Amino acid sequence: MIDIKFPDGSVRSYEQGVTGLQIAESISPALARDVLACGVNGETVELNRPITEDSSIALYKWDDDEGRHAFWHTSAHLLAEALQELYPGIQFGFGPAIENGFFYDVLLKDGESIKESDFPKIEAKMKELAGKKEPVVRKEVAKADALAEFGAAGQTYKCEHIEQDLEDGTITTYTQGAFTDLCRGPHLMNTGAIKAVKLTSVAGAFWRGDATREQMQRLYGITFPKKKMLDEYLVMIEEAKKRDHRKIGKEMELFMFSERVGKGLPIWLPKGTELRLRLQDMLRKIQKRYGYQEVITPHIGSKNLYVTSGHYAHYGKDSFQPIHTPEEGEEYMLKPMNCPHHCEVFAWKPRSYKDLPLRIAEFGTVYRYEQSGELHGLTRVRSFTQDDAHIFCRPDQVKSEFLRVMDIIQTVFSTFNFSDDNVEVQISLRDPEDHEKYIGSDEVWASAEQAIIEACQEKGLKAKVEYGEAAFYGPKLDFMVKDAIGRRWQLGTIQVDYNLPQRFKLEYTDEDNQKKTPVMIHRAPFGSMERFCAVLIEHTAGHFPLWLTPDQVAILPISEKFNDYAARVASELDRAGVRATVDKRNEKIGRKVRDNELKRIPYMVIVGEKEQADATVSVRKQGSEERGVMTIAEFAAKINGEVAEQLKATDIRPE
Amino acid sequence: MIDIKFPDGSVRSYEQGVTGLQIAESISPALARDVLACGVNGETVELNRPITEDSSIALYKWDDDEGRHAFWHTSAHLLAEALQELYPGIQFGFGPAIENGFFYDVLLKDGESIKESDFPKIEAKMKELAGKKEPVVRKEVAKADALAEFGAAGQTYKCEHIEQDLEDGTITTYTQGAFTDLCRGPHLMNTGAIKAVKLTSVAGAFWRGDATREQMQRLYGITFPKKKMLDEYLVMIEEAKKRDHRKIGKEMELFMFSERVGKGLPIWLPKGTELRLRLQDMLRKIQKRYGYQEVITPHIGSKNLYVTSGHYAHYGKDSFQPIHTPEEGEEYMLKPMNCPHHCEVFAWKPRSYKDLPLRIAEFGTVYRYEQSGELHGLTRVRSFTQDDAHIFCRPDQVKSEFLRVMDIIQTVFSTFNFSDDNVEVQISLRDPEDHEKYIGSDEVWASAEQAIIEACQEKGLKAKVEYGEAAFYGPKLDFMVKDAIGRRWQLGTIQVDYNLPQRFKLEYTDEDNQKKTPVMIHRAPFGSMERFCAVLIEHTAGHFPLWLTPDQVAILPISEKFNDYAARVASELDRAGVRATVDKRNEKIGRKVRDNELKRIPYMVIVGEKEQADATVSVRKQGSEERGVMTIAEFAAKINGEVAEQLKATDIRPE
Repeated sequence: MIDIKFPDGSVRSYEQGVTGLQIAESISPALARDVLACGVNGETVELNRPITEDSSIALYKWDDDEGRHAFWHTSAHLLAEALQELYPGIQFGFGPAIENGFFYDVLLKDGESIKESDFPKIEAKMKELAGKKEPVVRKEVAKADALAEFGAAGQTYKCEHIEQDLEDGTITTYTQGAFTDLCRGPHLMNTGAIKAVKLTSVAGAFWRGDATREQMQRLYGITFPKKKMLDEYLVMIEEAKKRDHRKIGKEMELFMFSERVGKGLPIWLPKGTELRLRLQDMLRKIQKRYGYQEVITPHIGSKNLYVTSGHYAHYGKDSFQPIHTPEEGEEYMLKPMNCPHHCEVFAWKPRSYKDLPLRIAEFGTVYRYEQSGELHGLTRVRSFTQDDAHIFCRPDQVKSEFLRVMDIIQTVFSTFNFSDDNVEVQISLRDPEDHEKYIGSDEVWASAEQAIIEACQEKGLKAKVEYGEAAFYGPKLDFMVKDAIGRRWQLGTIQVDYNLPQRFKLEYTDEDNQKKTPVMIHRAPFGSMERFCAVLIEHTAGHFPLWLTPDQVAILPISEKFNDYAARVASELDRAGVRATVDKRNEKIGRKVRDNELKRIPYMVIVGEKEQADATVSVRKQGSEERGVMTIAEFAAKINGEVAEQLKATDIRPE
Repeated sequence: MIDIKFPDGSVRSYEQGVTGLQIAESISPALARDVLACGVNGETVELNRPITEDSSIALYKWDDDEGRHAFWHTSAHLLAEALQELYPGIQFGFGPAIENGFFYDVLLKDGESIKESDFPKIEAKMKELAGKKEPVVRKEVAKADALAEFGAAGQTYKCEHIEQDLEDGTITTYTQGAFTDLCRGPHLMNTGAIKAVKLTSVAGAFWRGDATREQMQRLYGITFPKKKMLDEYLVMIEEAKKRDHRKIGKEMELFMFSERVGKGLPIWLPKGTELRLRLQDMLRKIQKRYGYQEVITPHIGSKNLYVTSGHYAHYGKDSFQPIHTPEEGEEYMLKPMNCPHHCEVFAWKPRSYKDLPLRIAEFGTVYRYEQSGELHGLTRVRSFTQDDAHIFCRPDQVKSEFLRVMDIIQTVFSTFNFSDDNVEVQISLRDPEDHEKYIGSDEVWASAEQAIIEACQEKGLKAKVEYGEAAFYGPKLDFMVKDAIGRRWQLGTIQVDYNLPQRFKLEYTDEDNQKKTPVMIHRAPFGSMERFCAVLIEHTAGHFPLWLTPDQVAILPISEKFNDYAARVASELDRAGVRATVDKRNEKIGRKVRDNELKRIPYMVIVGEKEQADATVSVRKQGSEERGVMTIAEFAAKINGEVAEQLKATDIRPE
């Protein structure tokens, strides 16, 4: 008999050689039906792998990353199996599971290629094969045998991979039906669970990502255990396309990129700048309430600063290279992080325990090189502005500071309708097996970890605890939000740091007159202005809350004759604190309505003969049937009332 | 007879060989008494130099830079003459006039040196020699003769200079009494005008600024035509020392520098950040009223961007060197100017004449390498943030745009009590002799120059017109302010640019459907946030206007017993929009008052037993005898009333 330990800490005895599936069956038939893979002592394996010694186990379902990964990995093999049958002589490259589905790199013989029009045929074949519920069989093979087997099958790339990358004694294959792949797994036990199949795209991809090698075709697909899930996914994809922040950012004139300025360097256009400044203003006001002090530091720092901080060792080689001075032999770096500058602010004058917690905030821009192929709108850029702050405090203040930061983050999120239900938090703690690799005393770590766990409990946040995910310099707490169409985005972070205060030899004089090292807490509720704006655009499809949106009202004169009255309406609204823009163009009113809908301005007011005569406006609310005629003052009061209602959570009105 | 043309355009005939002094005498005895040097066809020369052909002439007095320059240049020779008498065997290096006075580099024999205690003796000798009213005699000499003369006098450095730098046929000497100097002039006609003498400091200076050569002594001095002017100057210098923004910046905790971050890179501390953000907020609100649109662009741009703009040719070699990427072989530069980014914003979408003027504003940070020895507080830095904007307009809109920018600048200046009396403007136009070296058509230049001159006239600004001072790409207008102690600072600038729109191939569709190139106007009312804050600190000695100052009120509890009441006062003031800070330290009230005076907080309120019982505050206004007891609400109303009064000029209340 062996002891099996479950994630909740309970332990049960099983016969030696028991499998994950048998363990699931021993718990409930429903679990046995849903389980896709299992984790044995931290390694994900197939459900039919015998467990031969005392182990801790985790059973992974569709909701777990590990479960979906196995599902899509087997689906990649299913795709290859189908292709092998449909395209004799096909060569296979790599075929992994990815974040949303899987791909396989393939090369057809005689310069043939797969087109999107071929997808239905391939999908049909995949479903036909899946219907056979073929078992997936794992086999350990010697290198020579593997070479012989794939050589005989004419798989040139597989052979190259075996020869160049794999060591004898570590090679495994997985077989389903007539298809065998070189693979480390893990996989589903059989292909029967794959009920819905969709090939999503085909693109070119060089073998091994090397532009000097053969260009293969990369087929992307996704599969699900239920047809309904695929349907929902396809709807979500369609919706996501409509919400693509790059598209909406262009339509609303929020931001741009210029090849001439440089790839991945966002330029905030006037409307985007208004949006960003208003977000900053909101956070600034909230932070002021929580005792933060704002600073402005340069975007560069001497290389030595980052040697001291350790960032040079981390980012130096792979990011933007040092800037040399024409004389005096100095070297500067674009800053990869704001913390070293804030450490210097702390060190600027002697600090006493009475000064703590000292909360230094900055909308601080950092620069990190990313390959141009990796760049994506505002979510993957080469420069971004963090809504950063560093809290310098005593070790016994960590918990109360966490609570205060969580207050700020919850206030911000609730203002954007990311309610607690849609927020997930993850606590990253030390690897319980190895305390040696972390900086800072055991005692201080234990107390900080405890503080974070307690803070989450006090806030009533259901937190996922991940052991071994802490940085070497401290535990952290991450916030993920689910957007309006169910996608998860990582936003805010709170991170304890014992390392930088030591490296910068920071100290304060404690009550007992001793010099002590403060603890540092990094935090960013938005994460970065770029990322947050992108998420906000995709979450709201550009329909920002009324308080935040650049223009609250578009005034549309029926014809140019009423431009003067429109200007008068705009100026009265402006005096009432309402942001309005006039569409003075000599266009038909229908065209004006359509164009301003594209700009997602929440209210349109139409002014013509009657409105001018009565000093009123005809109001249309975007995305609703709401219509009405009212005086300018009534309309301004309506807008301001809605804004006040939206900002109840923050009790703050940004400029 | 020859024609002499005066700056006002009038022409008079004089005999050939007439001198500047004679021309002055022909106008008025007062002028002849005050004139110090004269300009003949743009070259400054001595008053006794015969004029042999038709010329334009300018007569320079003390108020003219050229007049003071000649005065101080002769004073440098007077210093050398005195030193030669007092320290036989002394060697002379260079001895020029500088912005405020002059210096002379000297080396005493046998390792002797001049100390500050020797100054009275030297000053006495200078005055004695000046009393002799020695004529200053100019002589053209052959290179061989000059070498022989200075060699005989044992002047090693003068000989080295002649040998290495001077060409035969261009060498002149000036002699007064027993002292002859190698010099290009111009000088006073005699030393008698020098009535007041002050040596200000002595420092080390390498010969030719080369650290591998001999270390000499640099003696700084200043002289005046009247004793009273020296007295005033010395008072001003004392006052300037007290107002040094570096000292006040530290006391008020406005900004800091860190060697580890890098020299010349300002870090804005919390109080300074508040100040700067409030200034930005003021300008932002004013600009909004004038139709500006704000953008945010990255602090870097590709090297190609600056090759296109021409900035690379200008700054490339002498400034921060390009940043390389670890892959893809890209090169980026820290931006030396914001204009190229704004050109890219203009070019982002097709523009019509209806979109013009398009006014793109940014608080844009630029980076320029300066030698570390040249750095000085916030006025000479390696990174600074311009309150920049670029106006893209039609050629016929230049004048109205100038007027609008001048409105903004005047609004800003008047808010800081830089009244029109204390503002000087300079118009920089083309060199009338050479129109070839400028880009853009003659017609367009003439119209822009005319527009600037007319705009100044309409604003009633007395503008100094400088021909030949325009940049090759357009004419400009500079604003200089005189601060509270009479020093002049260059602040705002408005600059027309025909070059960048061409280089970036910018275009708009005009009313006639033709593609045309817009004119670009660069402008910055503050100049830069760093420079403006430095000037403001020195102008106000840190006593910022109430609306602007970071903390308006310091609340000083008599003892810790009244900290709670002090907190209540602070929170009531906060609700009323008054910025207050509580000095909770366990210190005597006298100490608290002194410390908060150093922080230049305009109002202190003292709270103790009586105030707590009556719910009042005891008010002390800094720098005034004003005292009073009032309720918290009365006090808040008083503060807000003063703020409103101060902001009447802008009609804007920054956050």
